Amino acid sequence: MIEIRPITGIGEIEKGEDLGGILARALAPIAPKSSDFLVVTQKVVSKAEGQMVALEDVVPGQRATEIAGAIGKDPRLVELVLAESVEVLRAERGVLITRHRLGLVMANSGIDCSNVGAGSGERALLLPLDPDASAERIADAVEALCGVRPGVVISDSFGRPWRNGVVNVAVGCAGVPSIHDKRGETDRDGRTLQATLIAYGDLIASAAGLAMGEADEGVPAVLIRGLTLSGAPQPASALVRAVEEDLFR
Amino acid sequence: MIEIRPITGIGEIEKGEDLGGILARALAPIAPKSSDFLVVTQKVVSKAEGQMVALEDVVPGQRATEIAGAIGKDPRLVELVLAESVEVLRAERGVLITRHRLGLVMANSGIDCSNVGAGSGERALLLPLDPDASAERIADAVEALCGVRPGVVISDSFGRPWRNGVVNVAVGCAGVPSIHDKRGETDRDGRTLQATLIAYGDLIASAAGLAMGEADEGVPAVLIRGLTLSGAPQPASALVRAVEEDLFR
Repeated sequence: MIEIRPITGIGEIEKGEDLGGILARALAPIAPKSSDFLVVTQKVVSKAEGQMVALEDVVPGQRATEIAGAIGKDPRLVELVLAESVEVLRAERGVLITRHRLGLVMANSGIDCSNVGAGSGERALLLPLDPDASAERIADAVEALCGVRPGVVISDSFGRPWRNGVVNVAVGCAGVPSIHDKRGETDRDGRTLQATLIAYGDLIASAAGLAMGEADEGVPAVLIRGLTLSGAPQPASALVRAVEEDLFR
Repeated sequence: MIEIRPITGIGEIEKGEDLGGILARALAPIAPKSSDFLVVTQKVVSKAEGQMVALEDVVPGQRATEIAGAIGKDPRLVELVLAESVEVLRAERGVLITRHRLGLVMANSGIDCSNVGAGSGERALLLPLDPDASAERIADAVEALCGVRPGVVISDSFGRPWRNGVVNVAVGCAGVPSIHDKRGETDRDGRTLQATLIAYGDLIASAAGLAMGEADEGVPAVLIRGLTLSGAPQPASALVRAVEEDLFR
Protein backbone atom coordinates (compact mmCIF):
# COMPACT_ATOMS: atom_id res chain seq x y z
CA MET A 1 0.00 0.00 0.00
CA ILE A 2 1.16 3.50 -0.87
CA GLU A 3 0.42 6.33 1.56
CA ILE A 4 0.13 10.03 0.74
CA ARG A 5 0.59 12.15 3.85
CA PRO A 6 0.24 15.92 3.92
CA ILE A 7 3.02 17.57 5.90
CA THR A 8 1.54 20.22 8.14
CA GLY A 9 2.92 22.98 10.30
CA ILE A 10 5.19 24.56 7.73
CA GLY A 11 3.50 27.93 7.63
CA GLU A 12 4.31 30.83 5.36
CA ILE A 13 7.77 30.75 3.83
CA GLU A 14 9.69 33.99 3.32
CA LYS A 15 12.77 34.85 1.30
CA GLY A 16 15.97 33.49 2.74
CA GLU A 17 14.35 31.00 5.05
CA ASP A 18 16.01 27.61 5.41
CA LEU A 19 13.26 25.65 3.65
CA GLY A 20 15.22 22.38 3.75
CA GLY A 21 15.66 22.69 7.49
CA ILE A 22 12.01 23.61 7.99
CA LEU A 23 10.91 20.58 5.98
CA ALA A 24 13.37 18.31 7.78
CA ARG A 25 12.03 19.41 11.18
CA ALA A 26 8.44 18.90 10.00
CA LEU A 27 9.33 15.41 8.80
CA ALA A 28 11.32 14.32 11.85
CA PRO A 29 8.27 13.32 13.95
CA ILE A 30 7.14 10.85 11.30
CA ALA A 31 10.64 9.30 10.95
CA PRO A 32 11.30 9.66 7.23
CA LYS A 33 12.75 6.71 5.36
CA SER A 34 15.18 6.65 2.48
CA SER A 35 12.42 4.99 0.44
CA ASP A 36 10.03 7.92 1.00
CA PHE A 37 9.37 10.63 -1.54
CA LEU A 38 8.95 14.20 -0.32
CA VAL A 39 6.96 16.38 -2.71
CA VAL A 40 7.25 20.15 -2.26
CA THR A 41 5.34 22.80 -4.18
CA GLN A 42 7.31 25.08 -6.45
CA LYS A 43 5.77 28.05 -4.68
CA VAL A 44 7.43 27.58 -1.33
CA VAL A 45 10.75 26.77 -2.97
CA SER A 46 10.57 29.91 -5.09
CA LYS A 47 9.58 32.03 -2.08
CA ALA A 48 12.46 30.72 0.02
CA GLU A 49 14.86 31.34 -2.86
CA GLY A 50 13.75 34.94 -3.28
CA GLN A 51 12.11 34.53 -6.69
CA MET A 52 9.37 37.05 -5.85
CA VAL A 53 9.40 40.16 -8.03
CA ALA A 54 7.54 43.41 -7.32
CA LEU A 55 5.74 44.38 -10.51
CA GLU A 56 6.37 48.06 -9.76
CA ASP A 57 10.07 47.38 -10.32
CA VAL A 58 9.49 45.94 -13.81
CA VAL A 59 9.84 48.19 -16.86
CA PRO A 60 8.16 46.53 -19.84
CA GLY A 61 10.02 46.68 -23.13
CA GLN A 62 8.50 47.23 -26.52
CA ARG A 63 7.82 43.59 -27.31
CA ALA A 64 6.18 42.96 -23.93
CA THR A 65 4.04 46.06 -24.36
CA GLU A 66 2.91 44.94 -27.81
CA ILE A 67 2.06 41.40 -26.73
CA ALA A 68 0.34 42.64 -23.57
CA GLY A 69 -1.80 45.00 -25.62
CA ALA A 70 -2.71 42.27 -28.09
CA ILE A 71 -3.80 39.67 -25.56
CA GLY A 72 -4.94 41.84 -22.66
CA LYS A 73 -2.34 41.22 -19.96
CA ASP A 74 -0.31 43.44 -17.64
CA PRO A 75 2.75 44.49 -19.70
CA ARG A 76 4.98 44.16 -16.62
CA LEU A 77 3.91 40.54 -16.19
CA VAL A 78 4.49 39.92 -19.90
CA GLU A 79 7.98 41.42 -19.55
CA LEU A 80 8.76 38.91 -16.80
CA VAL A 81 7.28 36.06 -18.83
CA LEU A 82 9.46 36.95 -21.82
CA ALA A 83 12.56 37.35 -19.65
CA GLU A 84 12.02 33.82 -18.27
CA SER A 85 11.41 32.24 -21.68
CA VAL A 86 13.36 31.23 -24.76
CA GLU A 87 10.38 31.03 -27.13
CA VAL A 88 6.78 32.21 -27.32
CA LEU A 89 4.57 29.37 -28.56
CA ARG A 90 1.16 31.04 -28.38
CA ALA A 91 -0.03 34.53 -27.53
CA GLU A 92 -3.76 34.79 -28.08
CA ARG A 93 -7.12 34.98 -26.31
CA GLY A 94 -5.53 36.09 -23.03
CA VAL A 95 -3.19 33.10 -23.04
CA LEU A 96 0.59 33.35 -23.22
CA ILE A 97 2.36 30.02 -23.61
CA THR A 98 6.14 29.96 -23.64
CA ARG A 99 9.05 27.62 -23.52
CA HIS A 100 10.71 28.47 -20.21
CA ARG A 101 14.50 28.72 -20.09
CA LEU A 102 14.38 25.31 -18.35
CA GLY A 103 12.66 23.87 -21.43
CA LEU A 104 9.27 23.65 -19.75
CA VAL A 105 6.34 24.60 -21.97
CA MET A 106 3.80 26.34 -19.80
CA ALA A 107 1.46 29.28 -19.41
CA ASN A 108 3.14 32.57 -18.42
CA SER A 109 6.56 30.90 -18.00
CA GLY A 110 5.20 29.44 -14.77
CA ILE A 111 4.88 32.85 -13.16
CA ASP A 112 2.24 32.97 -10.50
CA CYS A 113 0.31 35.93 -9.12
CA SER A 114 -1.95 34.10 -6.66
CA ASN A 115 -1.05 32.94 -3.16
CA VAL A 116 2.20 34.86 -3.22
CA GLY A 117 1.75 36.36 0.24
CA ALA A 118 -0.60 38.70 2.03
CA GLY A 119 -0.74 42.20 0.60
CA SER A 120 1.24 41.12 -2.43
CA GLY A 121 -1.28 41.88 -5.12
CA GLU A 122 1.42 43.44 -7.25
CA ARG A 123 3.98 40.71 -6.93
CA ALA A 124 4.84 37.81 -9.18
CA LEU A 125 6.61 34.59 -8.30
CA LEU A 126 9.08 33.06 -10.76
CA LEU A 127 10.15 29.42 -10.87
CA PRO A 128 13.29 28.49 -8.91
CA LEU A 129 16.51 29.19 -10.80
CA ASP A 130 17.44 25.49 -10.92
CA PRO A 131 14.70 23.29 -9.44
CA ASP A 132 16.73 20.06 -9.72
CA ALA A 133 19.44 21.70 -7.59
CA SER A 134 16.76 22.96 -5.18
CA ALA A 135 15.51 19.39 -4.78
CA GLU A 136 19.05 18.16 -4.05
CA ARG A 137 19.48 20.85 -1.38
CA ILE A 138 16.22 19.82 0.30
CA ALA A 139 17.34 16.18 0.26
CA ASP A 140 20.67 17.29 1.78
CA ALA A 141 18.86 19.10 4.59
CA VAL A 142 16.64 16.14 5.41
CA GLU A 143 19.64 13.83 5.38
CA ALA A 144 21.58 16.15 7.69
CA LEU A 145 18.81 16.27 10.28
CA CYS A 146 17.12 12.88 9.93
CA GLY A 147 19.99 10.67 8.74
CA VAL A 148 18.08 9.40 5.70
CA ARG A 149 17.83 10.82 2.21
CA PRO A 150 14.34 10.51 0.72
CA GLY A 151 13.61 11.24 -2.90
CA VAL A 152 12.51 14.85 -3.41
CA VAL A 153 10.15 16.17 -6.07
CA ILE A 154 9.38 19.85 -6.64
CA SER A 155 5.94 20.08 -8.22
CA ASP A 156 4.03 22.66 -10.21
CA SER A 157 0.62 22.57 -11.85
CA PHE A 158 0.55 22.69 -15.65
CA GLY A 159 -2.18 23.02 -18.21
CA ARG A 160 -2.07 20.68 -21.17
CA PRO A 161 -3.07 20.82 -24.82
CA TRP A 162 -6.26 18.91 -25.63
CA ARG A 163 -7.28 18.32 -22.01
CA ASN A 164 -9.06 20.64 -19.61
CA GLY A 165 -7.70 21.48 -16.21
CA VAL A 166 -4.27 21.45 -14.65
CA VAL A 167 -2.30 18.51 -13.28
CA ASN A 168 0.82 18.46 -11.15
CA VAL A 169 4.13 17.68 -12.79
CA ALA A 170 7.71 17.45 -11.53
CA VAL A 171 9.91 20.47 -12.23
CA GLY A 172 12.70 19.39 -9.89
CA CYS A 173 13.83 15.94 -8.73
CA ALA A 174 16.56 14.49 -6.51
CA GLY A 175 17.03 10.77 -5.97
CA VAL A 176 13.95 9.96 -8.06
CA PRO A 177 13.68 7.86 -11.26
CA SER A 178 11.80 10.77 -12.76
CA ILE A 179 11.54 8.85 -16.00
CA HIS A 180 12.03 5.11 -16.37
CA ASP A 181 12.66 3.38 -19.64
CA LYS A 182 10.92 0.01 -19.75
CA ARG A 183 11.56 -0.39 -23.46
CA GLY A 184 13.21 -3.71 -24.11
CA GLU A 185 11.59 -5.32 -21.07
CA THR A 186 8.96 -7.88 -22.03
CA ASP A 187 5.29 -7.93 -21.14
CA ARG A 188 3.58 -10.85 -19.41
CA ASP A 189 3.23 -12.66 -22.71
CA GLY A 190 6.88 -12.23 -23.61
CA ARG A 191 6.42 -9.47 -26.19
CA THR A 192 8.83 -6.56 -26.02
CA LEU A 193 7.11 -3.53 -24.55
CA GLN A 194 6.65 -0.52 -26.79
CA ALA A 195 6.38 3.09 -25.79
CA THR A 196 6.90 2.46 -22.13
CA LEU A 197 8.89 5.38 -20.92
CA ILE A 198 7.05 6.07 -17.69
CA ALA A 199 7.11 9.58 -16.24
CA TYR A 200 7.32 8.58 -12.58
CA GLY A 201 8.29 12.10 -11.55
CA ASP A 202 5.02 13.44 -12.91
CA LEU A 203 2.98 10.56 -11.46
CA ILE A 204 4.47 11.29 -8.02
CA ALA A 205 3.70 15.00 -8.38
CA SER A 206 0.12 14.26 -9.42
CA ALA A 207 -0.44 11.80 -6.58
CA ALA A 208 0.79 14.43 -4.13
CA GLY A 209 -1.45 16.97 -5.83
CA LEU A 210 -4.47 15.06 -4.53
CA ALA A 211 -3.39 15.92 -1.00
CA MET A 212 -2.44 19.50 -1.85
CA GLY A 213 -5.34 20.57 -4.01
CA GLU A 214 -8.16 20.80 -1.53
CA ALA A 215 -6.56 23.27 0.83
CA ASP A 216 -6.24 26.19 -1.59
CA GLU A 217 -2.59 25.34 -1.90
CA GLY A 218 -2.15 25.58 1.84
CA VAL A 219 -0.41 22.18 1.95
CA PRO A 220 3.06 22.87 0.58
CA ALA A 221 4.58 19.44 1.15
CA VAL A 222 3.48 15.83 1.03
CA LEU A 223 5.22 12.58 1.91
CA ILE A 224 4.64 9.48 -0.21
CA ARG A 225 5.52 6.25 1.52
CA GLY A 226 5.43 2.62 0.40
CA LEU A 227 6.28 3.30 -3.22
CA THR A 228 8.96 1.10 -4.76
CA LEU A 229 10.21 2.26 -8.13
CA SER A 230 12.84 0.72 -10.35
CA GLY A 231 15.15 2.82 -12.43
CA ALA A 232 18.13 5.07 -11.80
CA PRO A 233 17.71 8.58 -10.38
CA GLN A 234 17.16 11.20 -13.07
CA PRO A 235 16.67 14.94 -12.72
CA ALA A 236 13.32 16.46 -13.67
CA SER A 237 15.08 17.97 -16.67
CA ALA A 238 15.01 14.44 -18.15
CA LEU A 239 11.22 14.83 -18.38
CA VAL A 240 11.57 17.72 -20.80
CA ARG A 241 11.35 16.55 -24.39
CA ALA A 242 14.12 17.84 -26.60
CA VAL A 243 12.89 20.52 -28.99
CA GLU A 244 14.01 18.48 -32.01
CA GLU A 245 11.88 15.53 -30.83
CA ASP A 246 8.78 17.68 -30.42
CA LEU A 247 6.18 16.64 -32.99
CA PHE A 248 4.04 19.67 -32.28
CA ARG A 249 6.29 22.58 -33.07
CA MET B 1 -3.87 10.36 4.79
CA ILE B 2 -4.67 8.99 1.37
CA GLU B 3 -4.09 5.28 0.69
CA ILE B 4 -3.46 3.65 -2.68
CA ARG B 5 -4.15 -0.08 -2.54
CA PRO B 6 -3.59 -2.46 -5.42
CA ILE B 7 -6.50 -4.86 -5.89
CA THR B 8 -5.13 -8.34 -6.45
CA GLY B 9 -6.60 -11.64 -7.52
CA ILE B 10 -8.43 -10.43 -10.59
CA GLY B 11 -6.51 -12.53 -13.10
CA GLU B 12 -6.86 -12.48 -16.86
CA ILE B 13 -10.11 -11.00 -18.15
CA GLU B 14 -11.74 -12.46 -21.26
CA LYS B 15 -14.48 -11.20 -23.55
CA GLY B 16 -17.92 -11.31 -22.01
CA GLU B 17 -16.74 -11.69 -18.44
CA ASP B 18 -18.64 -9.78 -15.77
CA LEU B 19 -15.83 -7.37 -14.94
CA GLY B 20 -17.98 -5.34 -12.55
CA GLY B 21 -18.88 -8.45 -10.59
CA ILE B 22 -15.27 -9.64 -10.54
CA LEU B 23 -14.11 -6.25 -9.23
CA ALA B 24 -16.92 -6.14 -6.67
CA ARG B 25 -15.96 -9.57 -5.33
CA ALA B 26 -12.29 -8.56 -5.18
CA LEU B 27 -13.24 -5.42 -3.26
CA ALA B 28 -15.67 -7.04 -0.82
CA PRO B 29 -12.98 -8.28 1.63
CA ILE B 30 -11.68 -4.75 2.13
CA ALA B 31 -15.18 -3.29 2.67
CA PRO B 32 -15.35 -0.54 0.06
CA LYS B 33 -16.74 2.83 1.10
CA SER B 34 -18.78 5.29 -0.90
CA SER B 35 -15.90 7.74 -0.47
CA ASP B 36 -13.41 5.37 -2.13
CA PHE B 37 -12.26 5.66 -5.72
CA LEU B 38 -11.78 2.49 -7.74
CA VAL B 39 -9.37 2.91 -10.65
CA VAL B 40 -9.47 0.27 -13.38
CA THR B 41 -7.18 0.05 -16.39
CA GLN B 42 -8.71 0.56 -19.79
CA LYS B 43 -7.21 -2.75 -20.89
CA VAL B 44 -9.31 -5.01 -18.71
CA VAL B 45 -12.44 -3.01 -19.47
CA SER B 46 -11.79 -3.27 -23.20
CA LYS B 47 -11.06 -6.99 -22.96
CA ALA B 48 -14.27 -7.68 -21.02
CA GLU B 49 -16.25 -5.64 -23.53
CA GLY B 50 -14.86 -7.57 -26.49
CA GLN B 51 -12.83 -4.75 -28.01
CA MET B 52 -10.07 -7.10 -29.16
CA VAL B 53 -9.63 -7.30 -32.92
CA ALA B 54 -7.68 -9.95 -34.82
CA LEU B 55 -5.44 -8.14 -37.28
CA GLU B 56 -5.93 -10.95 -39.82
CA ASP B 57 -9.56 -9.86 -40.09
CA VAL B 58 -8.64 -6.27 -40.97
CA VAL B 59 -8.46 -5.21 -44.61
CA PRO B 60 -6.52 -1.95 -44.87
CA GLY B 61 -7.93 0.68 -47.20
CA GLN B 62 -5.95 2.93 -49.50
CA ARG B 63 -5.41 5.73 -47.01
CA ALA B 64 -4.26 3.34 -44.28
CA THR B 65 -1.90 1.66 -46.72
CA GLU B 66 -0.42 4.99 -47.77
CA ILE B 67 0.08 6.24 -44.22
CA ALA B 68 1.46 2.89 -43.07
CA GLY B 69 3.99 2.93 -45.90
CA ALA B 70 5.03 6.47 -45.13
CA ILE B 71 5.62 5.99 -41.41
CA GLY B 72 6.52 2.31 -41.23
CA LYS B 73 3.58 0.72 -39.45
CA ASP B 74 1.41 -2.33 -40.07
CA PRO B 75 -1.31 -1.15 -42.51
CA ARG B 76 -3.93 -3.24 -40.68
CA LEU B 77 -3.14 -1.43 -37.43
CA VAL B 78 -3.27 1.92 -39.23
CA GLU B 79 -6.69 0.96 -40.66
CA LEU B 80 -7.96 0.35 -37.12
CA VAL B 81 -6.41 3.60 -35.91
CA LEU B 82 -8.14 5.55 -38.68
CA ALA B 83 -11.46 3.80 -38.08
CA GLU B 84 -11.32 4.82 -34.41
CA SER B 85 -10.38 8.43 -35.12
CA VAL B 86 -11.98 11.60 -36.41
CA GLU B 87 -8.74 13.41 -37.31
CA VAL B 88 -5.09 12.62 -37.90
CA LEU B 89 -2.91 15.20 -36.13
CA ARG B 90 0.53 13.82 -36.92
CA ALA B 91 1.83 10.93 -39.00
CA GLU B 92 5.59 10.98 -39.08
CA ARG B 93 8.70 9.28 -37.74
CA GLY B 94 6.80 6.09 -36.85
CA VAL B 95 4.30 8.07 -34.78
CA LEU B 96 0.61 8.31 -35.57
CA ILE B 97 -1.31 10.74 -33.39
CA THR B 98 -5.04 11.05 -33.84
CA ARG B 99 -8.09 12.57 -32.29
CA HIS B 100 -10.09 9.55 -31.19
CA ARG B 101 -13.85 9.53 -31.79
CA LEU B 102 -14.18 10.24 -28.03
CA GLY B 103 -12.15 13.45 -28.53
CA LEU B 104 -9.03 12.04 -26.92
CA VAL B 105 -5.79 13.02 -28.64
CA MET B 106 -3.44 10.10 -28.38
CA ALA B 107 -0.98 7.84 -30.17
CA ASN B 108 -2.59 5.15 -32.37
CA SER B 109 -6.13 6.06 -31.25
CA GLY B 110 -5.28 4.33 -27.97
CA ILE B 111 -4.96 0.94 -29.66
CA ASP B 112 -2.66 -1.41 -27.83
CA CYS B 113 -0.76 -4.43 -29.09
CA SER B 114 1.04 -5.39 -25.87
CA ASN B 115 -0.38 -7.39 -22.97
CA VAL B 116 -3.47 -8.32 -24.94
CA GLY B 117 -3.38 -11.97 -23.98
CA ALA B 118 -1.13 -14.98 -24.46
CA GLY B 119 -0.61 -16.03 -28.05
CA SER B 120 -2.22 -12.86 -29.30
CA GLY B 121 0.67 -11.40 -31.21
CA GLU B 122 -1.62 -10.42 -34.05
CA ARG B 123 -4.37 -8.83 -32.01
CA ALA B 124 -5.11 -5.23 -31.18
CA LEU B 125 -7.17 -3.85 -28.34
CA LEU B 126 -9.41 -0.82 -28.92
CA LEU B 127 -10.68 1.56 -26.24
CA PRO B 128 -14.10 0.78 -24.74
CA LEU B 129 -17.00 2.05 -26.83
CA ASP B 130 -18.14 4.45 -24.11
CA PRO B 131 -15.76 4.47 -21.12
CA ASP B 132 -17.93 6.79 -19.01
CA ALA B 133 -20.78 4.28 -19.36
CA SER B 134 -18.35 1.44 -18.57
CA ALA B 135 -17.39 3.24 -15.34
CA GLU B 136 -21.06 3.62 -14.39
CA ARG B 137 -21.66 -0.10 -14.95
CA ILE B 138 -18.70 -1.00 -12.72
CA ALA B 139 -20.04 1.34 -10.02
CA ASP B 140 -23.46 -0.34 -10.41
CA ALA B 141 -21.91 -3.77 -9.92
CA VAL B 142 -19.99 -2.74 -6.79
CA GLU B 143 -23.11 -1.13 -5.37
CA ALA B 144 -25.17 -4.25 -6.07
CA LEU B 145 -22.75 -6.54 -4.26
CA CYS B 146 -21.25 -4.28 -1.57
CA GLY B 147 -24.09 -1.83 -0.92
CA VAL B 148 -21.91 1.24 -1.49
CA ARG B 149 -21.11 3.10 -4.69
CA PRO B 150 -17.47 4.25 -4.88
CA GLY B 151 -16.24 6.61 -7.55
CA VAL B 152 -14.88 4.74 -10.55
CA VAL B 153 -12.12 5.89 -12.90
CA ILE B 154 -11.05 4.04 -16.04
CA SER B 155 -7.44 4.93 -16.75
CA ASP B 156 -5.13 4.80 -19.72
CA SER B 157 -1.55 5.94 -20.21
CA PHE B 158 -0.99 8.84 -22.58
CA GLY B 159 2.06 10.48 -24.05
CA ARG B 160 2.20 14.26 -23.99
CA PRO B 161 3.65 16.98 -26.17
CA TRP B 162 6.79 18.59 -24.75
CA ARG B 163 7.30 16.04 -21.98
CA ASN B 164 8.90 12.62 -22.13
CA GLY B 165 7.16 9.51 -20.91
CA VAL B 166 3.58 8.51 -20.38
CA VAL B 167 1.26 9.37 -17.49
CA ASN B 168 -2.10 7.91 -16.58
CA VAL B 169 -5.22 9.88 -17.37
CA ALA B 170 -8.93 9.26 -16.88
CA VAL B 171 -10.82 8.10 -19.96
CA GLY B 172 -13.96 7.10 -18.06
CA CYS B 173 -15.45 8.36 -14.79
CA ALA B 174 -18.51 7.67 -12.66
CA GLY B 175 -19.27 9.54 -9.46
CA VAL B 176 -16.02 11.49 -9.68
CA PRO B 177 -15.47 15.28 -9.92
CA SER B 178 -13.23 14.56 -12.87
CA ILE B 179 -12.70 18.27 -13.28
CA HIS B 180 -13.35 20.89 -10.61
CA ASP B 181 -13.69 24.56 -11.30
CA LYS B 182 -12.17 26.60 -8.49
CA ARG B 183 -12.37 29.82 -10.50
CA GLY B 184 -14.13 32.44 -8.48
CA GLU B 185 -13.01 30.94 -5.17
CA THR B 186 -10.45 33.08 -3.39
CA ASP B 187 -6.94 32.19 -2.34
CA ARG B 188 -5.65 32.49 1.20
CA ASP B 189 -4.99 36.18 0.70
CA GLY B 190 -8.47 36.88 -0.64
CA ARG B 191 -7.53 37.19 -4.30
CA THR B 192 -9.74 35.46 -6.80
CA LEU B 193 -8.02 32.34 -8.10
CA GLN B 194 -7.09 32.24 -11.77
CA ALA B 195 -6.70 29.21 -13.97
CA THR B 196 -7.74 26.74 -11.36
CA LEU B 197 -9.67 24.11 -13.18
CA ILE B 198 -8.19 21.03 -11.54
CA ALA B 199 -8.23 17.75 -13.45
CA TYR B 200 -8.96 15.49 -10.48
CA GLY B 201 -9.84 12.58 -12.75
CA ASP B 202 -6.35 12.63 -14.21
CA LEU B 203 -4.69 13.12 -10.80
CA ILE B 204 -6.55 10.06 -9.50
CA ALA B 205 -5.52 8.02 -12.54
CA SER B 206 -1.88 9.08 -12.13
CA ALA B 207 -1.85 8.31 -8.41
CA ALA B 208 -3.21 4.85 -9.17
CA GLY B 209 -0.62 4.48 -11.91
CA LEU B 210 2.08 4.45 -9.23
CA ALA B 211 0.62 1.19 -7.92
CA MET B 212 0.01 -0.27 -11.38
CA GLY B 213 3.23 0.57 -13.15
CA GLU B 214 5.72 -1.69 -11.48
CA ALA B 215 3.98 -4.97 -12.20
CA ASP B 216 4.16 -4.85 -15.99
CA GLU B 217 0.53 -3.85 -16.00
CA GLY B 218 -0.37 -6.90 -13.98
CA VAL B 219 -2.32 -4.78 -11.47
CA PRO B 220 -5.53 -3.91 -13.30
CA ALA B 221 -7.31 -2.15 -10.43
CA VAL B 222 -6.43 0.08 -7.51
CA LEU B 223 -8.47 1.47 -4.64
CA ILE B 224 -7.83 5.02 -3.40
CA ARG B 225 -9.11 5.70 0.09
CA GLY B 226 -9.13 8.79 2.26
CA LEU B 227 -9.46 11.27 -0.55
CA THR B 228 -12.05 14.01 -0.09
CA LEU B 229 -12.79 16.02 -3.19
CA SER B 230 -15.21 18.88 -3.63
CA GLY B 231 -17.10 19.37 -6.84
CA ALA B 232 -19.99 17.70 -8.60
CA PRO B 233 -19.54 14.42 -10.47
CA GLN B 234 -18.48 14.87 -14.08
CA PRO B 235 -17.80 12.29 -16.76
CA ALA B 236 -14.28 11.90 -18.11
CA SER B 237 -15.54 13.46 -21.33
CA ALA B 238 -15.49 16.77 -19.41
CA LEU B 239 -11.69 16.47 -19.38
CA VAL B 240 -11.56 16.64 -23.17
CA ARG B 241 -10.95 20.17 -24.37
CA ALA B 242 -13.35 21.30 -27.07
CA VAL B 243 -11.66 21.46 -30.46
CA GLU B 244 -12.50 25.15 -30.81
CA GLU B 245 -10.71 25.90 -27.51
CA ASP B 246 -7.57 24.07 -28.58
CA LEU B 247 -4.75 26.58 -28.99
CA PHE B 248 -2.52 24.02 -30.68
CA ARG B 249 -4.48 23.01 -33.75
